[in-house]
Amino acid sequence: MTPKDVEFAQKLADAAGEAIRPFFRAKFESETKGDSTPVTEADRAAEAAMRKIIESERPDDGIIGEEYGARNEGASRQWVLDPIDGTTSFIAGRPIFGTLIALMQDGFPLLGIIDQPISKERWVGVIGRETLFNGKSAKTSRCRELKDAVLATTTPHQFDEHDADHFMGLAGKVAPRKIIYGGDCYNYGLVASGHVDVVCEAGLMLHDFAALAPIVDGAGGMMCDWNGEPLHAESDGHVLAIGDPARVDDVLEAIACHH
Amino acid sequence: MTPKDVEFAQKLADAAGEAIRPFFRAKFESETKGDSTPVTEADRAAEAAMRKIIESERPDDGIIGEEYGARNEGASRQWVLDPIDGTTSFIAGRPIFGTLIALMQDGFPLLGIIDQPISKERWVGVIGRETLFNGKSAKTSRCRELKDAVLATTTPHQFDEHDADHFMGLAGKVAPRKIIYGGDCYNYGLVASGHVDVVCEAGLMLHDFAALAPIVDGAGGMMCDWNGEPLHAESDGHVLAIGDPARVDDVLEAIACHH
Repeated sequence: MTPKDVEFAQKLADAAGEAIRPFFRAKFESETKGDSTPVTEADRAAEAAMRKIIESERPDDGIIGEEYGARNEGASRQWVLDPIDGTTSFIAGRPIFGTLIALMQDGFPLLGIIDQPISKERWVGVIGRETLFNGKSAKTSRCRELKDAVLATTTPHQFDEHDADHFMGLAGKVAPRKIIYGGDCYNYGLVASGHVDVVCEAGLMLHDFAALAPIVDGAGGMMCDWNGEPLHAESDGHVLAIGDPARVDDVLEAIACHH
Repeated sequence: MTPKDVEFAQKLADAAGEAIRPFFRAKFESETKGDSTPVTEADRAAEAAMRKIIESERPDDGIIGEEYGARNEGASRQWVLDPIDGTTSFIAGRPIFGTLIALMQDGFPLLGIIDQPISKERWVGVIGRETLFNGKSAKTSRCRELKDAVLATTTPHQFDEHDADHFMGLAGKVAPRKIIYGGDCYNYGLVASGHVDVVCEAGLMLHDFAALAPIVDGAGGMMCDWNGEPLHAESDGHVLAIGDPARVDDVLEAIACHH
């Protein structure tokens, strides 16, 4: 990981944002565009813009893209791209979706970016360094007790019945008015910036979570699966982000209990 | 309702926004500030700023405020104020909360404002006129079938078991990936702008919904309670906003069914 890698990753985020902005809150006539929608057009345009830059400037690196699949699957360096994480927020015109970019070395994410192209907010995380939010240091908050935590999750529909029982074990420890829904990747940025204490989700794919761990870690928090194991390329998609490492045991204990 | 009323209401929204912005994403030390938090401070400062203007410039009008209660309860003109609708979003640092301002005449809301002071987005609705979003005409979208609708609701925790059954009757008619959570008043603005098709909520208070109907109506949509009755000061807090009036019967039919 060199400063040039970080600069390169930010160039990808810039290109994705430029591709996405014209489609936000745009309306298509379904008659004229077939099954194209602003979100699918934006998703494809943003991933294509990022891939073009990688293929031209880093031809030996691999790409794992949400829209266009894998390239150079054997490469030890892999760019993991999710052009629009939070497609429902995008469709609904809410500026809390994001572009996710991760650089993995041998399956381990070393660098992550969450970019919100409408409000122009960007979190950049690199393993072993301080996370930056729009160029300034981002820090998670201390959280003395779980009952004071702000807990975020995107949608209850992501949980199957078994997951929902465990999620409610955690949600039951938090004040109901401090549980917040919606938000996708944006919630993890808000953990890094100290506004959200815990994010709990299930069913995430590698492109949904690879960028997040370097950002949350570098801000003083931690990410793991629901059993407390570190996230890696083969993780099962049950994800926790915890701003205050002193609360990790409390969170894992709460989520282990059925409601 | 005169153009001066609209101008005056916008002056209230400007004052609330100025009061709120310094507290967004601010951190207080709980040791030094007792039980004050940025959101309670912002809530109080914004309502106080609005009340001061009303008391000085419109001393005979009534005020129904979320934070500081009622003034001139017998007046036929009442300003209904919710300085921060979406306190959890505010706490979590998400710029999708809003200030709500309504002017009611004899219990009927004639004017409504949703103001998002961070992104500086404002919806202004006046009964019988076109709704404006940042000064430009806002229009709801057509929605051919309920299965294509974007359905928004703030949190599943607002529904008791009975309400949840009915909500799931409606949610079951929509594509799961088009159900969006979080958002509070901001979702109703997005209905007016044509990005969200249906909002369904329960447990709302007068200050939560009074401002919304003029905005949604003036953009071509409609608001009603879960039985299809128009909203008024004594409504029971079960609220629907529907962008395409042609889908009202479908929505009411779906929500009348238990899941």
